[in-house]
Amino acid sequence: MNRCLFAGPKSRSLSETRTLATYVVDGGVQDIPADVRHEAKRAVLNYVGCALGGSHEQAVDAAVRALSPYSGPPTASILGRTERMDPLHASLINGISSHVHDYDDTTPKNYIHPSSPVASALFAYASVNPVRGEDFLNAFVLGFEAESRIGNAVYPAHYDAGWHITGTAGVFGATAAIGKLIQLSEDQMVWALGLAATQAAGLREMFGSMAKALHPGRAAQNGYAAALLAQAGFTAGEHSLEGPRGFAAVTAGTYDLAKITAGLGVDYDLRANTYKPFPCGIVIHPTIDGCIQIREEYNLNPETIAAVRLRVAPLVLDLCNKRNVTVGLEGKFSVYHGAALGLVRGKAGLLESTDEAVNDPAIKRVRECTTAVPDPALTEDQAHIEVELRNGEKLEVFIEQSLGNVHRPMTDRELEGKFRDHAVPVLPASQVEKLIEFCWQIVDVEDCRTILV
Amino acid sequence: MNRCLFAGPKSRSLSETRTLATYVVDGGVQDIPADVRHEAKRAVLNYVGCALGGSHEQAVDAAVRALSPYSGPPTASILGRTERMDPLHASLINGISSHVHDYDDTTPKNYIHPSSPVASALFAYASVNPVRGEDFLNAFVLGFEAESRIGNAVYPAHYDAGWHITGTAGVFGATAAIGKLIQLSEDQMVWALGLAATQAAGLREMFGSMAKALHPGRAAQNGYAAALLAQAGFTAGEHSLEGPRGFAAVTAGTYDLAKITAGLGVDYDLRANTYKPFPCGIVIHPTIDGCIQIREEYNLNPETIAAVRLRVAPLVLDLCNKRNVTVGLEGKFSVYHGAALGLVRGKAGLLESTDEAVNDPAIKRVRECTTAVPDPALTEDQAHIEVELRNGEKLEVFIEQSLGNVHRPMTDRELEGKFRDHAVPVLPASQVEKLIEFCWQIVDVEDCRTILV
Repeated sequence: MNRCLFAGPKSRSLSETRTLATYVVDGGVQDIPADVRHEAKRAVLNYVGCALGGSHEQAVDAAVRALSPYSGPPTASILGRTERMDPLHASLINGISSHVHDYDDTTPKNYIHPSSPVASALFAYASVNPVRGEDFLNAFVLGFEAESRIGNAVYPAHYDAGWHITGTAGVFGATAAIGKLIQLSEDQMVWALGLAATQAAGLREMFGSMAKALHPGRAAQNGYAAALLAQAGFTAGEHSLEGPRGFAAVTAGTYDLAKITAGLGVDYDLRANTYKPFPCGIVIHPTIDGCIQIREEYNLNPETIAAVRLRVAPLVLDLCNKRNVTVGLEGKFSVYHGAALGLVRGKAGLLESTDEAVNDPAIKRVRECTTAVPDPALTEDQAHIEVELRNGEKLEVFIEQSLGNVHRPMTDRELEGKFRDHAVPVLPASQVEKLIEFCWQIVDVEDCRTILV
Repeated sequence: MNRCLFAGPKSRSLSETRTLATYVVDGGVQDIPADVRHEAKRAVLNYVGCALGGSHEQAVDAAVRALSPYSGPPTASILGRTERMDPLHASLINGISSHVHDYDDTTPKNYIHPSSPVASALFAYASVNPVRGEDFLNAFVLGFEAESRIGNAVYPAHYDAGWHITGTAGVFGATAAIGKLIQLSEDQMVWALGLAATQAAGLREMFGSMAKALHPGRAAQNGYAAALLAQAGFTAGEHSLEGPRGFAAVTAGTYDLAKITAGLGVDYDLRANTYKPFPCGIVIHPTIDGCIQIREEYNLNPETIAAVRLRVAPLVLDLCNKRNVTVGLEGKFSVYHGAALGLVRGKAGLLESTDEAVNDPAIKRVRECTTAVPDPALTEDQAHIEVELRNGEKLEVFIEQSLGNVHRPMTDRELEGKFRDHAVPVLPASQVEKLIEFCWQIVDVEDCRTILV
């Protein structure tokens, strides 16, 4: 690694861009610790599920409709859809699908949704080129780390300024991952990172519109293209991260470039990655979680419920106090609906976010007998739930750490359950199980196309 | 216009984004004053010349090589090249070609190179769709004004922060122009501007590399795609310009949104557009200009020159003091070479930027007998030139306003000369003249494809 820090033939000075490029060019799968490899597989499994689950949303349909006439030879598969497009467009569509439900992974270190930009490009690439599973996983880890470290360097000033960091940092991840697979030289990787930097975009003003999901899509597509351009000799500024007019200086009032390089190859941000168990506002998660626990522990018959009383962090009621719920989307912003789902159905996945679910009479009845009070003593990861039955009996639970946060991660089996929830409506059952197997056994796969094509 | 400022069915509040969208949706060619129409034709002529002149540069070859395998059906023509690509990729390549020599238009109001993003998308579009010349010109003017006004609102803080404003403001121009031609509704135009805003990118750190020319290319391509996505119902935030996490707030420390809407449809930034007469650092222009004048006025035989003495603004020697010139690119940064070109060849176009020209013995001799002193009393638009002949005679000229600046614009004939300089090496002579004719007569053209295909 040190070779990039000292004067070589070109008399190079210290450069975070070059150090990172060298790391990506040199990094081999054997360098990745076992726990990080396992977390990468979990991230890929969660990613594929999210992409399948989102693959038929309106935003995805609109993008496919608008851009299909401009697609190159339709060689690449799109996760969850039968259309094919060229690999750049497939990257874009995968990116939109996987983020459209806001159900993909994230890390509290920088609030990037890190897998979407990286894996969206990789799955498109690997559907048309021979890629060994271990090389796929290696490229994923390197892309993830490059993206997350650049995010760490500019977070929080960058995010606070209004950048959607999933798009802006994401493009570096896709660039590094594809650049790794097409075996860019060190100089080419430096250019590719420069081409990524100068295409980094995405405004938080888009939150609440389809354009939010465009960000990881464009990040995947532009990162992929950045690697191709660099390979063809298309040059870019060589100090794209640290230069006075580079990514950090231009997009963040304060930043710490040391976070890009400190502990590189030793500390992995993948270890801090988290997965959402429910496709709704994260502050409702402990309530849903607790209600599912009560239902299971007491083998609850929902018809016996007389009242539900919640104590939650005040922020929960600021964000998710919706009482009158008639369409699926509104349910995502109602802590009352979340409680009812947990108690009546024992789950709150994508199938419970529909218009049908919010209008289910059994759910509606429980939702309407649920009340909530704010309790400043509780964090947003906590909730206290009391269920009073018609016979006067009271059932209680206190959730101290919400399922899915970094202290209480979803188990591998829970991630598989989430995956099936996404995948079953989209794919034949046999393929669903094959994809789960693919994710866990990825390092032994000879050619990913055997699964993806 | 007022209808967007007051509560309608959706109870709209004042929004620069919507006001601008309405202007673009409603604007007709008959609304454009005659002088602005004429300036638009000059801008288009200058643009096409630059695109032809740059169309075989290394950066363009690399981009075509890297991205051709990903192009959709090759229906669109690329200015100056025989390959065809889909219209989005053709927009990209046109954008790179037209900016790669840094020879395209600009305005001192905001230093955007405004025509490249707008016209690059329009020429790609008009090569595959029936477009009447007057609609082309109208879309060009509307795109130009949208882009330039957004640029004015964020300039100079945005540019000073390190954004390459040609890329960041440029994407709005391409969006507006294509959105106009595909007849977006007002709501769709608002979304399209949002999709533009959230893809706006380009860092000044890329200056000096090929990536600088990528910026107007991606602006053209992404703006074109933004219009297509919006047409397909892909939504975006509706306050992309003025919102608290919108383009202005996120990318400029200070900004003035009133500049987007003040005098809309009355004041045209096209009136302040300028064209470079020489493809080199603008601070050398008065020296070249003066040397050409001396050569012409005195019918100078360059062999009679004994010495050349320049007085120039100090900045000229900071930027362009290169004495030892052996390759074409170096000549662009040598005020001595500029003087020699003017005196020996009487011109300093693209054909004088070659390795051949800098090594021409006659030019080399004059370059080496040229000296320059800084004079703080001179502006960068001025130069004093004294030529001493072998017989002791002294010829002098003082340039007060440099050719090409807003006070001494290039004439239509001079623009035609620049165009031929670009076009002759690329196209048959008959086609060169037909393209000039096309630009001047554009409002009478029934279908632009008759010229462009």
